[in-house]
Amino acid sequence: MMADMVRVGIAGLGRLGRIHAENIHGRIPSLKLVRVVDTVEEVARSTGERLGVPWSTRFDDLLNEATIEAVVLVTPTPMHAPMIEQATAAGKHVFCEKPIALDVETTQRAIAAARTAGVKLQIGFHRRFDPDWAAAARRIHRGELGAIQLFRTSLRDMCPPSLDYLKSSGGFFVDMMIHDFDTARWMAGEVDELTAFGANLADPAIAEIGDVDHGIVVLRFASGALGIIDDSRAAGYGYECSTEVVGALATARIAHHRRVNVEWLTPGSASTDYVADFLEQFPRAYALELEDFAEAISSERPVAVTGEDGLAALVLAQAASRSLQEQRTVRIHRDESAGGVSDAVQ
Amino acid sequence: MMADMVRVGIAGLGRLGRIHAENIHGRIPSLKLVRVVDTVEEVARSTGERLGVPWSTRFDDLLNEATIEAVVLVTPTPMHAPMIEQATAAGKHVFCEKPIALDVETTQRAIAAARTAGVKLQIGFHRRFDPDWAAAARRIHRGELGAIQLFRTSLRDMCPPSLDYLKSSGGFFVDMMIHDFDTARWMAGEVDELTAFGANLADPAIAEIGDVDHGIVVLRFASGALGIIDDSRAAGYGYECSTEVVGALATARIAHHRRVNVEWLTPGSASTDYVADFLEQFPRAYALELEDFAEAISSERPVAVTGEDGLAALVLAQAASRSLQEQRTVRIHRDESAGGVSDAVQ
Amino acid sequence: MMADMVRVGIAGLGRLGRIHAENIHGRIPSLKLVRVVDTVEEVARSTGERLGVPWSTRFDDLLNEATIEAVVLVTPTPMHAPMIEQATAAGKHVFCEKPIALDVETTQRAIAAARTAGVKLQIGFHRRFDPDWAAAARRIHRGELGAIQLFRTSLRDMCPPSLDYLKSSGGFFVDMMIHDFDTARWMAGEVDELTAFGANLADPAIAEIGDVDHGIVVLRFASGALGIIDDSRAAGYGYECSTEVVGALATARIAHHRRVNVEWLTPGSASTDYVADFLEQFPRAYALELEDFAEAISSERPVAVTGEDGLAALVLAQAASRSLQEQRTVRIHRDESAGGVSDAVQ
Amino acid sequence: MMADMVRVGIAGLGRLGRIHAENIHGRIPSLKLVRVVDTVEEVARSTGERLGVPWSTRFDDLLNEATIEAVVLVTPTPMHAPMIEQATAAGKHVFCEKPIALDVETTQRAIAAARTAGVKLQIGFHRRFDPDWAAAARRIHRGELGAIQLFRTSLRDMCPPSLDYLKSSGGFFVDMMIHDFDTARWMAGEVDELTAFGANLADPAIAEIGDVDHGIVVLRFASGALGIIDDSRAAGYGYECSTEVVGALATARIAHHRRVNVEWLTPGSASTDYVADFLEQFPRAYALELEDFAEAISSERPVAVTGEDGLAALVLAQAASRSLQEQRTVRIHRDESAGGVSDAVQ
Repeated sequence: MMADMVRVGIAGLGRLGRIHAENIHGRIPSLKLVRVVDTVEEVARSTGERLGVPWSTRFDDLLNEATIEAVVLVTPTPMHAPMIEQATAAGKHVFCEKPIALDVETTQRAIAAARTAGVKLQIGFHRRFDPDWAAAARRIHRGELGAIQLFRTSLRDMCPPSLDYLKSSGGFFVDMMIHDFDTARWMAGEVDELTAFGANLADPAIAEIGDVDHGIVVLRFASGALGIIDDSRAAGYGYECSTEVVGALATARIAHHRRVNVEWLTPGSASTDYVADFLEQFPRAYALELEDFAEAISSERPVAVTGEDGLAALVLAQAASRSLQEQRTVRIHRDESAGGVSDAVQ
Repeated sequence: MMADMVRVGIAGLGRLGRIHAENIHGRIPSLKLVRVVDTVEEVARSTGERLGVPWSTRFDDLLNEATIEAVVLVTPTPMHAPMIEQATAAGKHVFCEKPIALDVETTQRAIAAARTAGVKLQIGFHRRFDPDWAAAARRIHRGELGAIQLFRTSLRDMCPPSLDYLKSSGGFFVDMMIHDFDTARWMAGEVDELTAFGANLADPAIAEIGDVDHGIVVLRFASGALGIIDDSRAAGYGYECSTEVVGALATARIAHHRRVNVEWLTPGSASTDYVADFLEQFPRAYALELEDFAEAISSERPVAVTGEDGLAALVLAQAASRSLQEQRTVRIHRDESAGGVSDAVQ
Repeated sequence: MMADMVRVGIAGLGRLGRIHAENIHGRIPSLKLVRVVDTVEEVARSTGERLGVPWSTRFDDLLNEATIEAVVLVTPTPMHAPMIEQATAAGKHVFCEKPIALDVETTQRAIAAARTAGVKLQIGFHRRFDPDWAAAARRIHRGELGAIQLFRTSLRDMCPPSLDYLKSSGGFFVDMMIHDFDTARWMAGEVDELTAFGANLADPAIAEIGDVDHGIVVLRFASGALGIIDDSRAAGYGYECSTEVVGALATARIAHHRRVNVEWLTPGSASTDYVADFLEQFPRAYALELEDFAEAISSERPVAVTGEDGLAALVLAQAASRSLQEQRTVRIHRDESAGGVSDAVQ
Repeated sequence: MMADMVRVGIAGLGRLGRIHAENIHGRIPSLKLVRVVDTVEEVARSTGERLGVPWSTRFDDLLNEATIEAVVLVTPTPMHAPMIEQATAAGKHVFCEKPIALDVETTQRAIAAARTAGVKLQIGFHRRFDPDWAAAARRIHRGELGAIQLFRTSLRDMCPPSLDYLKSSGGFFVDMMIHDFDTARWMAGEVDELTAFGANLADPAIAEIGDVDHGIVVLRFASGALGIIDDSRAAGYGYECSTEVVGALATARIAHHRRVNVEWLTPGSASTDYVADFLEQFPRAYALELEDFAEAISSERPVAVTGEDGLAALVLAQAASRSLQEQRTVRIHRDESAGGVSDAVQ
């Protein structure tokens, strides 16, 4: 075994949790999966047995295993913050899916816990590690676009998730658009104000639980640039994740939604397939974000996506929720002493 | 000569006027150019001599020529309405570039004049005749998209026009985005409310004359669908006119910005050229809109883009200007008795 | 009327003939259609009446009309050469569809007739005037590719033409691939030798008349570069005309087969339409070749595609037929005294 | 550790050997790397230490390690056959890079050795496992194309390999085009005859060692369909691997050469990057072929690419060499008793 493999335990073995577990187990050379945990015994057992690693239903089993250096949290959102606090107290590095929590205070407490413990905390904004977005960001950060004028991104699911999921999701902006807020900050800088619009076009039941299924947010960046995010729970044709950044010198467009690069010609038509969901779109990103996490641990450099990044995206998502509710533009107040952001106020 | 060629005079021989004159002269079988007019003698003479048709500096010369059935107005906007009134009074059909006027009342008066005279009045929203947009619209109107959920369009110039032009243009929304308001109505139906955002990122001088160089408008259609328009006076990389309409059953995307369809491969890169302006993008649309105008006259059917369409787009553009100025969402009041629209009020 | 409009008569009003007639009549400012001729009275009359020009069934009527400066020949191939001889004897410039004739001697005689009469003779290799191919050729001729290494082109019809047409067509290489031989010479220079392959895959009846429905020719250019042409009478999915030229410094690829630039997204698929035939692919090329012909006449410069170009392509097509028949590589002997080419010999 | 991980040793740690080693070590869950071997001690040591596995310079060390179930051979071609014979005699399954040998007899002996030993032998035609080609092949094999009419494929390197490499490579067709012969058979069926053309356009030194740097082969399949392969050692602009299969019902085109899916817009131009070599093009294919090999071993099903496939492609490559040399079409004689193919004869 390589001397520098990072020993990892994972908690939460739902769809994405199993993908992370499989990646760690067999597709990421710098990580070694040593234990899997899920509160549902059958889920934990089947995954553990399939991957040939110890399994159990108790998070404590991860914390108590001295050789585990890092934990990956793919549990429901309400468990993220307490688990971060427990894991960091036990000296483990933490990789946590977004969002850390549905409120700012809990998020800040979790970030503080990691800081106090002196361990690393990385948030699962996987898009930053996708080769397409990463390549564009690299050139943007190098200044190849010149001054950014417009940032535009779309995130669309083919069909809405279940109502049960939606009820505890934190809502459209915190659950879904939070990825775009992170991308916006990463590519175009901090946001000064935003205005949100929403609509219920797909399923009336989503309106009944007080949420929207389509949302548009217009951003004004600290630089003066404008931004547009348009997201949908029900685009119908497939999954969409595409981004455009218009600069004074050049413009970058990121889009690729073919499952395979085969063009199929039939009388009068040329067609290609189209990805159906985020798992088809981002298989490499999910592996690469964990590889980068491992490298941050091994090389003792900061993680690429910090808890503060998670907090900043949450603040924007909450501001969007408030903007939609109060039908007004919301200004973001950034308090540098509080890790770069505080709550949104007009 | 074909029996059914429509005899046309044109007034206003600037860049677009000359293109119209040349199309009428030699590229549209159903139109016959019989006289050209421009207030600048040298301009009128050179065009007339080049095309081999009579020329003069007086609009009256068009009106007094009995054989002229229709006039094409490519004059500065303030002259549109009075010229429409004169031409329709003289019994001529009128093709007029957008906008009819910078205010609603004058626009309504011009429309009424054409109605009273019983002649046709068509507005120059050329995009409706571009083969790409027309093909998409046809399928959309046939219902192939199902219920429309999102309309999105971008219009971007490479560089801003001169300040002189901008000063009398009516402003960003009336001069530029009016095309997108027309496309929005045409493809996705009437608009109930809109919210505008603007920024000055390209040239401070544009701010000094009280205008913006970037604008975003979020639309809410009568159907409940959402819309986004993002326009720029200074995209830098080239001219952009692209549209997406997301429906419950299917989505249509319209974009094509290659001057020619040649891919040029050099070490490590595949590139194509990119159109620089609207003239490169829409050569066919400018001819097809006049062909359609001729056909409407010959076959005595209504024109495809009416004065009322021009008015409706103007109302949206003015609502956007007001929304930007007052930083609020503006509701559109549609008064069917007044030709479908009246002024915008919250 | 413009002083420099070239007065044109057209003979042969089949599908392509009518397109030429309509272009000349109303879509090419520098040409004036003054008479149409077809041996079938009904065809001649309906076209003449529709376009409002005199018509008749006798070619002599074109020749005898003193004001006609040029004739456009879209008649069956066997009539091309005699008509060229008559028209040039009458002092008319000639635009003639390919091929001039099915044999070299007749072709040479027609070329000589035009030369003797001192009039212009242009051959209808329309692809040279298509904006895509023309733009690529311009850059290739400027040297931007460096030394050419590989030339590759495909020409495919969706379905075979009628057997009646095929019987008198001159065969696969002379009727169809002749366009590609012209493109090859134009883009990559003279051909030294070629080897042809053929197959009957679409319709056994084509084999019965001694022709093939699929053909591949491998070229060796005088420069040493290689070339591949693959043509099909029955590609099924649509019409294909695409070209690639690989050079030491860069490579150019030309392809565009969308009827309109709309992408249509339905669940799991992104599709665009695909052109069905050459008329959909090359509408502009058919007008531009005649515009260029007019300009050559008006400005007294040589035509862009000469009779000698027609002859050279015929020689290659015949060499391909012989190569296929004799199952061997055929070398091309170019006799500069005979207008650049003579018959093909090994 | 998973019960069904296949324990593997690898011999040959050049560029591709190291990629295989790293994939086996950390990116393929079903394989476990247990030893690496290279005759150059420094190479063996550095790879072994980096991956944390035992290393040595002797192939025997792999054979003698009882727990090793399979060996991966990435050694120079002359060592393939003897190593296959040794490994299979030792009861190991073998994955061997192409070609098995430069001659048919040696190849047949190696295949026979594996058969006698009752172990699996898979050849490294990685393209069969690339998701794009695999998806197209699946639909082709399902019959979605109907009868195949034309198979066309291009393989191009940006720059030629070193002369030293070329001298012992077996020549253009055996070293490079062998991949395309395999793809041709896989997608369009057995080949009845072929005709080869070659040229030296890139580097005169390649001619001096008796090889070509450009090659075209025209194929006639047993089905009657035609095929074209055009390969280049020096395409200049980048790496090309693209395939088209034209059928009576539909056509499939496979191409994708972007390193990342970012379009970069600068004034007047839209560009994307372009892959430089096969490693950039096929990273997933190299991992997937080994995953499939592991699965064949675990599930005791046949491998997807057999030694006989390797032999058949070699026969075609040799036939092409002979065709080029003798300037004639070569017919392939398939002797089913000899594993489907025997040597090529006219």
